[in-house]
Amino acid sequence: MQNFTFHNPTRIVFGEQTIAELAALIPDGAKVLLTYGGGSIKRNGVYDQVVAALEGKVFFEFAGIEPNPSFDTLLKATALLKSEQLDFILAVGGGSVIDGSKFIAAAACYDGDSWDLLCGKAKVQQAVPLGCVLTLPATGSESNGNSVVTRYSTQEKMAFSSPLVYPQFAVLDPTTTYSLPPRQVANGVVDAFVHVMEQYLTYPVNAPVQDRFAEGLLQTLIEQGPQALQRPEDYAVRANVMWAATMALNGLIGVGVPQDWATHMIGHEITALHGLDHAQTLAIVLPALMQHQRRQKRDKLLQYGKRVWQLAHQDEERLIDEAISHTRAFFEQMGAPTRLADYGIDASAIEPMVERLVQHKMVKLGEHGDITPEVSRRILQQAL
Amino acid sequence: MQNFTFHNPTRIVFGEQTIAELAALIPDGAKVLLTYGGGSIKRNGVYDQVVAALEGKVFFEFAGIEPNPSFDTLLKATALLKSEQLDFILAVGGGSVIDGSKFIAAAACYDGDSWDLLCGKAKVQQAVPLGCVLTLPATGSESNGNSVVTRYSTQEKMAFSSPLVYPQFAVLDPTTTYSLPPRQVANGVVDAFVHVMEQYLTYPVNAPVQDRFAEGLLQTLIEQGPQALQRPEDYAVRANVMWAATMALNGLIGVGVPQDWATHMIGHEITALHGLDHAQTLAIVLPALMQHQRRQKRDKLLQYGKRVWQLAHQDEERLIDEAISHTRAFFEQMGAPTRLADYGIDASAIEPMVERLVQHKMVKLGEHGDITPEVSRRILQQAL
Repeated sequence: MQNFTFHNPTRIVFGEQTIAELAALIPDGAKVLLTYGGGSIKRNGVYDQVVAALEGKVFFEFAGIEPNPSFDTLLKATALLKSEQLDFILAVGGGSVIDGSKFIAAAACYDGDSWDLLCGKAKVQQAVPLGCVLTLPATGSESNGNSVVTRYSTQEKMAFSSPLVYPQFAVLDPTTTYSLPPRQVANGVVDAFVHVMEQYLTYPVNAPVQDRFAEGLLQTLIEQGPQALQRPEDYAVRANVMWAATMALNGLIGVGVPQDWATHMIGHEITALHGLDHAQTLAIVLPALMQHQRRQKRDKLLQYGKRVWQLAHQDEERLIDEAISHTRAFFEQMGAPTRLADYGIDASAIEPMVERLVQHKMVKLGEHGDITPEVSRRILQQAL
Repeated sequence: MQNFTFHNPTRIVFGEQTIAELAALIPDGAKVLLTYGGGSIKRNGVYDQVVAALEGKVFFEFAGIEPNPSFDTLLKATALLKSEQLDFILAVGGGSVIDGSKFIAAAACYDGDSWDLLCGKAKVQQAVPLGCVLTLPATGSESNGNSVVTRYSTQEKMAFSSPLVYPQFAVLDPTTTYSLPPRQVANGVVDAFVHVMEQYLTYPVNAPVQDRFAEGLLQTLIEQGPQALQRPEDYAVRANVMWAATMALNGLIGVGVPQDWATHMIGHEITALHGLDHAQTLAIVLPALMQHQRRQKRDKLLQYGKRVWQLAHQDEERLIDEAISHTRAFFEQMGAPTRLADYGIDASAIEPMVERLVQHKMVKLGEHGDITPEVSRRILQQAL
């Protein structure tokens, strides 16, 4: 096991009817910026519950944070927060709203061009405190310090990370997810699954707690994900998916072990250039990457096949083949096709994506730093 | 899954050579009470590392906190903290030193008789902040709000719990455990194992993440525990035991699920009246309790047998029998005998222990509240 520091200060408030607890969770006297997305929270009753809980508090609303939140949109929210001198952000929505709100929190305290925070030119030194109500289990953003923001004018999708933007609290009421469209449910499950894989499918470092926690989350998502599509109002299933997605990226399973994240980095370029859902890009890239990196990931692929999929072939190559094909089949079962062609993307699209990776300095990806642009090209070719 | 709140603010600093990080972890300007136990930290070099890291800081030492820390000893430490107006506690040791330091932290801020905090008469309203360096993985005290204190004059072992006494940080350097006597290593593994079982071996509530995390910890302890005895200086093994013990009782695996804790409550009375090590009492009580409660715990016993011990009998009663006997054999392999008789305790000792349980209002123990004094008596008889 490698040395590590782990600190996750987010208070999780989990269960039915927990939105009402916002009244006590938001600091007394706070002036709140309430952020949300396209308005689904108005249709499913979440907005009304939040507003009821905010009764007596000063709050301003900023709606319209997009999926893959837009830098320009977030600048408008930042301006509102500053002009009204608000001092707490309550993000209500999925990962995009929470990611976007983290950026608002950091940008509001940064004097220069806030793109600096995303392109790596500046580090977050201060941030407005925030809390969240999660309505779409997927990104883990409700309990980590990560944020991904897209600048549409230049088709750039960039990330930042800071301990200063961990939500102070996250309210997770599984019933808020009943009304999600199936595609979003599926995306969430695939996203969480790949988050686990990025931290698990590398090489062994004798870290059995982390391995078994990761395997437990993968098994849970494999088992509960399809049920969430079949029975949208099954509370237990929704609760299990929600908790698994939070645990998948709250930092815990990644402590002391190598991490990959190449699937995400390559996937970000697909979204930036072709507008696919984040999870769709992961469903495309991961199986191709597993295939291409099967030698480097051999030990973990075998462990994954045996423990997560209960495969028992004598022939190890065949076992790995099946582990990959099971993964692909799971994504497709969740409604996420796993080939670029399934989304109308052909070989001519590969070179521009590789160029973007180079431009973003994504030239030594993966747990060994051996996923060069040439390797990314081959992975994308494998994904055609 | 049941509704829950989870908040664990302890910063974990894990790995070799991490004690030096104390210099940055302790707040600037803090006046520190350094607490420790019987002096083993002076023999194994931990004390020197701690003192080196504290260079330039004001600190006072309080040594001699016992295993099963004594109320009277802790009062002396509290008096020192108050008289020197110290404002931070650094506990260096195992669960007893950390538990004791939590009590000091709370007692220092309480105006009345501080026994009130233990007997349930008063709740902790304020506490001196504390941090710790863990040298004995076992209790999970390094990252939770629990404390157990013994008043030897009345043979009472009592517990309190408060979010205010979570250590702000916990430094976990597995090399500090190399020099532990085998009995303490074994006790730690058994203690951590039973912590998991208290939160796992109840009844199913469709909480697969929690179940699989618990099973992963149990498997890790079963696999790594004996290796820790065989190869005391195997870093990876020590690291895995240490991390598993922390995860076993930091609150995570117990969220949203029923919990038992009858083994602990009955075990506390054995320690109080007969002086056995805490873990020895758990090794005695748990197998007997599993046997006695096999009907109420049936579903989880079967799951435990299949998933943790890979048992595959058709006959479910036999599978449960084997799950219990494997558990007993594991404790004995770790050097913790599982019968009262092994410690020279006979049937005549049972009634006084049952009387103590009644006196401490431990009359409806277990996840169903069905472990009455009569049931505790039968469990102890089963453990003869």
